Amino acid sequence: MKNDTNNSPINGQRCWDRLLELARITDPALPWTRRSFSALFLEGRAWLHRAFEEAGLAVRVDAGGNLIGRLPGSGNLPKSILIGSHSDTVPGGGRFDGIAGVMAGLEIAASLRERGERLRHDLEIVDFLAEEPSEYGVSCVGSRAMAGELTQPMLQSVNPAGETLEAALRRVGGKPESLSGAVRRDVAAFFELHIEQGPVLESRGLDLGIVTAIVGIARVAVTFTGVAAHAGTTPMALRQDALVAASDFVLALHRAASALAASGRGYFVATAGNVRIHPNAANVVPGEVTLMLDLRSDRRPLMEEFLAELQPLAAASAARFGVSLARFERPSDTSTALCDPGLMAGLREQAMAGGRSFVEMTSGAGHDCAFLSRVAPSAMLFVPCRAGRSHCPEEWTDAAQLMAGVETLSGAVRSFDARAAKGAV
Amino acid sequence: MKNDTNNSPINGQRCWDRLLELARITDPALPWTRRSFSALFLEGRAWLHRAFEEAGLAVRVDAGGNLIGRLPGSGNLPKSILIGSHSDTVPGGGRFDGIAGVMAGLEIAASLRERGERLRHDLEIVDFLAEEPSEYGVSCVGSRAMAGELTQPMLQSVNPAGETLEAALRRVGGKPESLSGAVRRDVAAFFELHIEQGPVLESRGLDLGIVTAIVGIARVAVTFTGVAAHAGTTPMALRQDALVAASDFVLALHRAASALAASGRGYFVATAGNVRIHPNAANVVPGEVTLMLDLRSDRRPLMEEFLAELQPLAAASAARFGVSLARFERPSDTSTALCDPGLMAGLREQAMAGGRSFVEMTSGAGHDCAFLSRVAPSAMLFVPCRAGRSHCPEEWTDAAQLMAGVETLSGAVRSFDARAAKGAV
Repeated sequence: MKNDTNNSPINGQRCWDRLLELARITDPALPWTRRSFSALFLEGRAWLHRAFEEAGLAVRVDAGGNLIGRLPGSGNLPKSILIGSHSDTVPGGGRFDGIAGVMAGLEIAASLRERGERLRHDLEIVDFLAEEPSEYGVSCVGSRAMAGELTQPMLQSVNPAGETLEAALRRVGGKPESLSGAVRRDVAAFFELHIEQGPVLESRGLDLGIVTAIVGIARVAVTFTGVAAHAGTTPMALRQDALVAASDFVLALHRAASALAASGRGYFVATAGNVRIHPNAANVVPGEVTLMLDLRSDRRPLMEEFLAELQPLAAASAARFGVSLARFERPSDTSTALCDPGLMAGLREQAMAGGRSFVEMTSGAGHDCAFLSRVAPSAMLFVPCRAGRSHCPEEWTDAAQLMAGVETLSGAVRSFDARAAKGAV
Repeated sequence: MKNDTNNSPINGQRCWDRLLELARITDPALPWTRRSFSALFLEGRAWLHRAFEEAGLAVRVDAGGNLIGRLPGSGNLPKSILIGSHSDTVPGGGRFDGIAGVMAGLEIAASLRERGERLRHDLEIVDFLAEEPSEYGVSCVGSRAMAGELTQPMLQSVNPAGETLEAALRRVGGKPESLSGAVRRDVAAFFELHIEQGPVLESRGLDLGIVTAIVGIARVAVTFTGVAAHAGTTPMALRQDALVAASDFVLALHRAASALAASGRGYFVATAGNVRIHPNAANVVPGEVTLMLDLRSDRRPLMEEFLAELQPLAAASAARFGVSLARFERPSDTSTALCDPGLMAGLREQAMAGGRSFVEMTSGAGHDCAFLSRVAPSAMLFVPCRAGRSHCPEEWTDAAQLMAGVETLSGAVRSFDARAAKGAV
């Protein structure tokens, strides 16, 4: 590994070994699984707590359930530098999504202390609570709390066992009754390292992605209601088949999104999933189909334009096959998060100094960084992942690829610290 | 009710009351449900057993698990006339599908005996076992047995609890070890009355449907395999979305089937259902979609022609969206069953004599009659059902509509008996 040489500011082998050690805290029946709020998640957190302490960090859990290790700075400055990501996973996910960013922060803090180098700012390493969609239907629980966007209705969401998110938050050490204590107005800069979770870096043979923006995500729920009928006795001409109408709409959605993506006006993707068909038997004409659409863009005007075209498309598909568009709702719609130009410039500078190839790119995935960007200058660094695969057991990044990211991040944090302390940023 | 007049050969009110009494033997949580092999089904059978005996019938259960009540004829003839249908239901089905035909047979037998009228042939009223798709994945269990088509592999099918159909058959009084005893070569004529389960009779204001043929049913399993990928980070141009390809195919199927049905060359319907999507989440590009197609026609050449066109259609949908057609199989394909022209003529004659309006039509639904037609001259009579609804709690036919069918059937049976005994048929 390149970073095994003595002039590297970090200990790559240690960082890699620790990452795999934490990854092994998984449901053995469904690797790699460490779902938020589960016993395994708490086991992972206990492991992290010890690792933070061994690196000399002062550890606490904030009101939003985030695990935070702090390394005091020398400058007695009012604001901190934060590095973080998350230790929870999706069911049957991978070994890198989330913990790569936490391990990067831990390694940077540990190696600073080992070298006797002190930042001027306090440095905080954060394991954000429940970044992935949780059993309570809410994602990014901890980073929402830091941004002051974890709402009362969200806290009242329940998991399938009937527990509220409020109770679950308390169970992992958070304080739902004093969430204002979690909101951060004292962050000088936030950095998150993450695997790309897509094919762009690998397909172009690049070392790093410097994120310009994290897409806004709109979810649209669409229901087509026709008439369930006997598949044998209902002539073709008398059918009101909800699946045929929904299929027409899925195609229309795909065509419209592909055209917009190809227009070069910005990043745009649209996906139809979470399909519910009723009845869903071979011998019954489907009476009702519900789809959830996932739309993402880095440009709000593109999203607005697409959303305006979408309802007429759905209505046309319904009308074409004699069914009704019973529902067309937007249960969520988050705005695009822009990364901080100054922090991006710092990452570029360090990448070039280290001889790393990179591209500036949009993050199509949501991240804790999107919420942090609402309260602090924030930046995000991607490392490649094999075949772009993520949220699956095959998820992989090579140690050298990951350490290229950790070194670049380390340099950017130290450079920011020096300049910001001087008031130059 | 028209049939309450004294010149009616049947007691319509009694028939109707009995039907509703049997229908009330239902799972109270999911009316109307009396699934084959269940405790409720056996309760219904015990009720039927008593009703058959009260009507003077000699009751037995044959090796295929069919409940049979026999009224001896005066002619000492080697062959019997059979009237039957089934007492099992789908989950959450209706009060008429199946038992209407059993109650019709019971009423005809009971009223013959009351009037002191004896047929020359023995008359057997049959409650066929498990006509609806059973928990064991096999339908028409009893009528298959009578046709000698209940095979060993079918008997080894298991329900979700792990019980074989063989064990279940034994449990309801059948003899799986001596199924040859159930095969009937001694049936002079088989008649089945059933609700239409479709909208044709009602929409045309007709009293009766005389069935010309029962459709052949081909089932085709199709799987499109693409690549599951992150819905945010996978650009539109790099996707291999199995749901988009499957949607394209569902539309192509619908268009091709509608065109064939409109050609006037025969009855044809095609339905896509039983859709399985994996993963099926809003934030993942679907990687694999499996569909089950249900194709029905009364003309084998039309079915062959459509089947030949279908695989290229599926392959084209797959190719258009860069996914593979991983599976294209025909797990079942039953041939069309033709009704007997002589028995159809007898039904026509009785309908006209009774002043009933009728149409000759294809049955798009499968029935026990399809299996009986392989071993005996068989005929089927439809009565209208409200809005064509069936297999749902709203399933309904008016008493007068049902009795028009029972009277017509009664006349046709007596007429056939007289003529067949004289060797005129």
